[in-house]
Parts: sequence; structure tokens; C-alpha cells
Amino acid sequence: MSKEKKSALKEKKGVSVSETTDKSSIKSIKEKRSNKIAPSQLIASILNGNITALGKAITLIESKNRKHLKDANNVIMGCLPYANNSIRIGITGVPGVGKSTFIEAFGKHLTAQGKRVAVLAIDPTSTISKGSILGDKTRMESLAKDDNVFIRPSASGDSLGGVARKTRESIILCEAAGFDVIIIETVGVGQSEITVHSMVDFFLLLKLAGAGDELQGIKRGIIEMADAIAINKADGGNLKSAKLAKEEFSMALHLYPERPSHWQPKVTLCSAINSEGIDEIWKLVLDYMEATTKNGYFEVKRNKQSEYWLIQTIEEQLKFDFFNAPKIKKELEKQMKLIENKKTTPFAAADYLLNLKL
Amino acid sequence: MSKEKKSALKEKKGVSVSETTDKSSIKSIKEKRSNKIAPSQLIASILNGNITALGKAITLIESKNRKHLKDANNVIMGCLPYANNSIRIGITGVPGVGKSTFIEAFGKHLTAQGKRVAVLAIDPTSTISKGSILGDKTRMESLAKDDNVFIRPSASGDSLGGVARKTRESIILCEAAGFDVIIIETVGVGQSEITVHSMVDFFLLLKLAGAGDELQGIKRGIIEMADAIAINKADGGNLKSAKLAKEEFSMALHLYPERPSHWQPKVTLCSAINSEGIDEIWKLVLDYMEATTKNGYFEVKRNKQSEYWLIQTIEEQLKFDFFNAPKIKKELEKQMKLIENKKTTPFAAADYLLNLKL
Repeated sequence: MSKEKKSALKEKKGVSVSETTDKSSIKSIKEKRSNKIAPSQLIASILNGNITALGKAITLIESKNRKHLKDANNVIMGCLPYANNSIRIGITGVPGVGKSTFIEAFGKHLTAQGKRVAVLAIDPTSTISKGSILGDKTRMESLAKDDNVFIRPSASGDSLGGVARKTRESIILCEAAGFDVIIIETVGVGQSEITVHSMVDFFLLLKLAGAGDELQGIKRGIIEMADAIAINKADGGNLKSAKLAKEEFSMALHLYPERPSHWQPKVTLCSAINSEGIDEIWKLVLDYMEATTKNGYFEVKRNKQSEYWLIQTIEEQLKFDFFNAPKIKKELEKQMKLIENKKTTPFAAADYLLNLKL
Repeated sequence: MSKEKKSALKEKKGVSVSETTDKSSIKSIKEKRSNKIAPSQLIASILNGNITALGKAITLIESKNRKHLKDANNVIMGCLPYANNSIRIGITGVPGVGKSTFIEAFGKHLTAQGKRVAVLAIDPTSTISKGSILGDKTRMESLAKDDNVFIRPSASGDSLGGVARKTRESIILCEAAGFDVIIIETVGVGQSEITVHSMVDFFLLLKLAGAGDELQGIKRGIIEMADAIAINKADGGNLKSAKLAKEEFSMALHLYPERPSHWQPKVTLCSAINSEGIDEIWKLVLDYMEATTKNGYFEVKRNKQSEYWLIQTIEEQLKFDFFNAPKIKKELEKQMKLIENKKTTPFAAADYLLNLKL
């Protein structure tokens, strides 16, 4: 984001530039002394684009301490009116495809144009290891040094749903902090692509040529979600097979029916390590944005995503409440035994358990 | 099933053969006069292998009249101890692949060996058209005439879940009626394959060579569920491309990780219309049964399937009850509007709605 745009944004938010610059530096000192900041202060600092405040607010969201929940919700609600103004890009690919290198090259390309870039991650393995294995900041060292970049590793959590919720709420805060492009990165494992796809505008699949990788992608239905496929490491001796893979994927993509977005997904080559083909991918994103804003799909998709998260959250909670009731836990086990011994059917057992609860 | 086996089964069930043969014919006349038969009578007739009684009992299960529910459940519970003794085979494939012709050839191959064969169907389109579009009996004309065959078209219903429940309960009745092989047929549409896969022991995917069909199958992840792939219409001018497709699929299957069953899925050729390759497929089924019975996977899978149905039924009901409560219906709409206008987040809205209910 250019300096002009930045101050314009701040004025739009009713905060003068000179005033906030001083105050935020004082605040930042205070923040270091005390972990407890009032939600209203956090909101004001976030709206001023203060990255330290943004980081603290996300920590608040991620907190497992029930006492922080109300403050976290207040910060989110305070930021909400200023959210929704970014391009949200999901990036996925199997380990080894070069996601970090790609994001670094892609991010630099954007900051060179004055854009502010936030990188969030959803790492399903962090729900098992209870911590981000990625350490994103060290992975994307030169990008992390940029003042116009905010990098946050994947939250750890008990469930993918929980991590996803935190990431989606973090998007709101990043947007309120004036980030123009928000990248959500995930590894090609399990449900995480579907989760990321349901919170981004544009979904980019990174691939490598050869090694049976083509089939793996098709297998999990990820190709159907991709708005673009970038074949990375298309350099040196790889170039020939990368070009071949590009043709294969292009052909494959044409076999799928037209999408509700009317967007025909594109296949492109890049070499992230040499910063080649990056500009082309960014142009694709802009083309997509233009086309879907014009035909109204962009708005429809964001609303559908909200609906998805609303319904999803309710369903998850209903199940959680039911199956974690001590009475149900005990009786469920008994019913399973009865089913195994052919004393009851799964359906009769379900009816029995549901009547217990009601 | 051979005559000896049949009488052995009846004796096992504590019913003498001579007695039941007479009684069941009298019953069958009575049944035609009155639609109301006591569950205990239905159970006795089913255990005697009476196909008319079996059909009536399934009609009772499929009834939407709430008054029939108790009788239906009583019949199911009465049959349950005699269930579980069949091979359950799921067959899927896109329209035009030749499912009816295949099932006819496969069924005849089995009845020629003295087996009794039941054919049930899950047709997701019937949940929309409120009736089976298939008219299975006319499709499999010569098979339908066989006394050792029971063919039942797909139940119609409000949801795939509802239809699935009825089919799964019908399996219990068919097994109690002494059917050795139960075939569950479905078309390659939407979720129906997953539904069928979750109620059968062996899952057979029918394919045609060429026409981009290979990719379609991979796309929906069906290949991962298939225990065997049979390339049908492998005759005349098709033979060459069928052989090629066989090789491609075999290669593709080898890229997937080993399954919990330790079964390596096989690809085979057949020409259902010429009854070629049918014996080979049946041998595959028997090989699978032997291998998985020996390594314990067969039992594990059946128990897992029961658990799946138990959990699935509960979850469906929880969601149905919640989202159909009039209060929720009204408030859900309001919350969606608030989300669209950025006045609340999907998560805050979910919390609000869940608290309303509790």
C-alpha cells in the first residue's frame, strides 16, 4: 500500500496520521510492559496498522484461557466494520513443492508494488503436535524483515475446526490493520485444503512436474478447487517436464464442467527461487478479481463462505455437546457392544441415545 | 443356496421344513387378502425364505406412515439375530456402463451355483423424483424370474440418508431370509457411492474404456474405495482399448498406499452381455472374503460400518432437530443478514443461535 493510500485509509477511519504515529510508539512500549491491554486500545492500534497490536490481538484470539474470550470477541467485533477489504489467497501444495520460497517471491513482488501482505497458515499437523512445526518466520527470512509484511505461523489447537476458526478471525484483524493481500498457506494433508478454500477468494495449487504428483492432486479433488495451478521449479533440467505437465493439467481442467464463477482455471509455470513467473500469477489473481467482481460471484462467494462457517460451527458444536455429555459417553459404549453382539441395530441404538438426551 | 443348506438353515432357526412349507403357502394367501400381518408372522415367514413376506416387510420399513414404525422395528429386531450371514457387494458405475446387464450375468452365475441373490438399489435421483426411475425388475428381466432371486428397486425418500437407512435395514431382512449374496447397486452420482461403500463388504467399480471416464472416476475418489475395477464391454472392437485401460488403472492403483484390509485391488475385463469374465470377478470376491476373514479385517470393517451408521444417524438427527426448530429458522435468517452487513461474524452468530436453543 502506498503512503498516500495508507493515510487515506487512516483518515477514513477517523484517526489523524501525525497523532497516531506518536501514540502508537508509546503504546508499543506500554504493551511490552504489560500483557493486559484494553480491547478498545487494541482496536485503535490495529486500525492504525500497528503490527505489534495485531500480533497481540491474534494471541488473544488464540488463547485457551476462557477469561480472554470476551476481550477477543470485542476486538473482533470492533475490527469487523473495517474488514473485508483484502484479496484473500489460499496456497497449497505437498511438502517439498516450495511453498515458502514461492510465498517469499510472491510477497516481495507485492511489497515492491507498495502492497501490505499478511501470511497466515493452517497446518493440520499442528493440531496433533500442539504447536506449529513450521516456524514460518525463519522459513521466509527476507520477507519477514519487511515492515509491510505480517507473518503468523499456524495456531495450534485441539481440532482443525478450532484452528480454522482462529485463522478466519485473524483474517478480520489483518484486514482491519490495512493489509491488502492475505495469504493463507496450508500443506496438502487431509481436510486442510477444503478448510482454506472455504475462507479465500482465490485458491492457488502449487505442483511439481513428474513423480506421480499429478495423480495425487486429482485424487483428492483439489484440482476442482484450484483457480490456478502453478507448476513450480520450472527451471533448468526440469523445464521440459514442467511444460509437459502444464499441457496435461490444462487438458484435464477442460474436462471439468464450467464453474459457478465462470472462471476457467489456468495452469502456469514458475520458478520461485529465480522469481520467474511470479508476475504472471499475480496478474491471474487480478484478472480473477476483476472478472468475479464484475459478474457478482465475488460477493456471492464471500456470503456463501460466511454461511458455510455459520452452519459448520453450529454443527460442530451440536455434535461436541452431544457426544461429550457423560451420560451419552457411557451409553454409547454400551450400545456399540449391543450392536456388535447383534442385539440392536445402529438405527435403534441411535434412537435410544437421542431419546436419552432429550 | 443348495436345498440341503436351506433346510439346515431352517433347522438351525428351530423351524421344521415340512411344517413351514405348508404354513407359508397358507400364509401367503392370507397375506394377499389382508395387508395387515403381525410382525411375528412376518418374521417367521422371512426366516422360512418367503419372498412375498420379505417384500411386504421391506414395504413396511419404507412406509412413511408413523403407525408402521413400531411394527417395522419389531420385524427388524426379530430378524437381526439371523442376519450378518451374506456377502454384501456394492456395484457402481456411471449410467451406460452396463450395470443391469452386469448384475444379470453376475446373478445368473451365482444362482447356477445354487446361491440365492438379492439385489437392492440406492438411487439418489429417487430422492428428488420421489420414485425409483429404474424399474429394476424390467431391467433385469430374466434374472427377476428366478425363484432364488429377490430384486427390489430403490426406495424413494426425502433424503439420501433416509433411503440409505431403509436399504441397510432391508439387508438385515434379506440375510434373515437366507440370501447368500446381496448386491447393492448405485449410480455414479454424488454421495451415493460413499453411502453404498459404507454398507458392503466388497465394492466393485464398473468402468468403460476411453471417453475420459478414467479421470472422472479418479476425480471423485471412487477408485480409492474400489476393491476391484471391472472394465465392461471388453469385446469386439473395444477389446484393445479395454486392455489399455486395464493397464492404466492397474498402474494408478499401485500408487495408492496399502489399505487397512491389506487387499491389493484388482482390475479385470468383462463383457457382461456375453457373460465373459464374470467368473473371474466372483473368484475375486471369494479371494477377498477369504483374505479378510483370515486377517480379521472383515469383522473389523463390519463393526466400523455399524459405528459409522450409529454416529451418522445421530448427527443427522441432531442437525435436523436444530435447524427445523421454528425459532432457529427465523433467527438464522436474521443472523445471516447481520453477517452480510458486517454486523456480526459467522462465529458470533453461531454462538448466539446455539444459546437460543439451550
